Amino acid sequence: MPRFRLDIEYDGSLFAGWQHQADQPSVQQAIEQAIEKFCGEAVRLRAAGRTDAGVHATAQVAHVDLAKAWPDDKVRDAINAHLQVAGARIVILKATIAPDDFDARFSAIGRHYLYRILNRRAPSALEKGKVWWVPKRLDAAAMHEAAKLLLGRHDFTTFRSTQCQANSPVRTLERLDVSRTGDVIEVRASARSFLHNQVRSMVGSLKRVGDGSWTSGDLKTALEARDRAACGQVAPPDGLFLIGVDYPG
Amino acid sequence: MPRFRLDIEYDGSLFAGWQHQADQPSVQQAIEQAIEKFCGEAVRLRAAGRTDAGVHATAQVAHVDLAKAWPDDKVRDAINAHLQVAGARIVILKATIAPDDFDARFSAIGRHYLYRILNRRAPSALEKGKVWWVPKRLDAAAMHEAAKLLLGRHDFTTFRSTQCQANSPVRTLERLDVSRTGDVIEVRASARSFLHNQVRSMVGSLKRVGDGSWTSGDLKTALEARDRAACGQVAPPDGLFLIGVDYPG
Repeated sequence: MPRFRLDIEYDGSLFAGWQHQADQPSVQQAIEQAIEKFCGEAVRLRAAGRTDAGVHATAQVAHVDLAKAWPDDKVRDAINAHLQVAGARIVILKATIAPDDFDARFSAIGRHYLYRILNRRAPSALEKGKVWWVPKRLDAAAMHEAAKLLLGRHDFTTFRSTQCQANSPVRTLERLDVSRTGDVIEVRASARSFLHNQVRSMVGSLKRVGDGSWTSGDLKTALEARDRAACGQVAPPDGLFLIGVDYPG
Repeated sequence: MPRFRLDIEYDGSLFAGWQHQADQPSVQQAIEQAIEKFCGEAVRLRAAGRTDAGVHATAQVAHVDLAKAWPDDKVRDAINAHLQVAGARIVILKATIAPDDFDARFSAIGRHYLYRILNRRAPSALEKGKVWWVPKRLDAAAMHEAAKLLLGRHDFTTFRSTQCQANSPVRTLERLDVSRTGDVIEVRASARSFLHNQVRSMVGSLKRVGDGSWTSGDLKTALEARDRAACGQVAPPDGLFLIGVDYPG
């Protein structure tokens, strides 16, 4: 059976996350249903990042096996047509035949996330659900400096959901940059893989540095505590976007 | 009575436009109701640009007279609080006391619009209602070249709604730039003032140049016809944003 790689964009606001849920709409289920309407096959997708409820993606990657080697454009356009009819805010950006051993999750060697904070007194009218609104002024430069403390290989237990299923709390954080453009603060995070809620936990703690309630020393102490209770608030899902997945070659 | 200038952002998707309508929600009415809840005064706003149904703004400007010289921040935050309660996707970015002779509409000497086209095979998941989705590939460079034909002082009857109430169809177009970044084509238009539907009419005609169904000569012929029937399609409101208003000084 030919294996297809799907590059996917979605607005996570209306979904309980990527992953199948018993009674709630998931991105995975919506796409699987669209595929079944297109070719009659009951399929199961696997994705690079199992995003949480409310988290968005501009470049999620998943794979699926279909019975026929349909043309790429046909797969993309047919799935999109059924998603549109269903009113789902999900689109397939690209569908491409992939090698049989391509696995969207296990072949991935890098994941890139963007977290957006709207830092102004007025809430957002145009990007509701797609930014974290923080009315108090944040010092983005101080956040960027503090973020360097988290770079590299660490035990990230402090920044990991208690529900995280990963075997090890050790991860290697390759990038954590904070920058401001006008009222918008962007946090960009890259690693081979992340723990559950890791990006939102790091952003919530960096926000404390930004508003002056934590020093960078407090952030270091929190990391070294290896204790979930030492984490600052967890940033809401609204501002988080999966923006890229890397594969070898 | 002190006069306040309000700088306003809104998502036009849920409104029948800026202007009061008998039976439909308008941006103007939503803000006037929020002001009445805040200070008990039944007021009437006047805005720089009477945007149509579905058109957005990042920098609309309006003025209103209030009985008391409230602090600026109090006016902004109180109106925003009532708008949030009402679930309106409108926010006051700034409220400032203005000179008595300041008139948001008649003092304006420049208006700036942005029109966004998403030019790719897949529709938008993340910006539904905020871009015009054009799946067929457009030549943005050809659109930019053709746009130069519309610059300067012209009779824009071709690009004017039949319902336009302006006395004269003559306007001076100061800027009309088309540029592409990835899958997004941006059209930026500036003038002292615009006719009703002028930007959307120009964008719809430029799109014809972009997809090859019109030459730039056809665009020139359309302009010179001074005939509404010569206009290409009118671009949908979704992609249009009022992004700036200039005042003297």
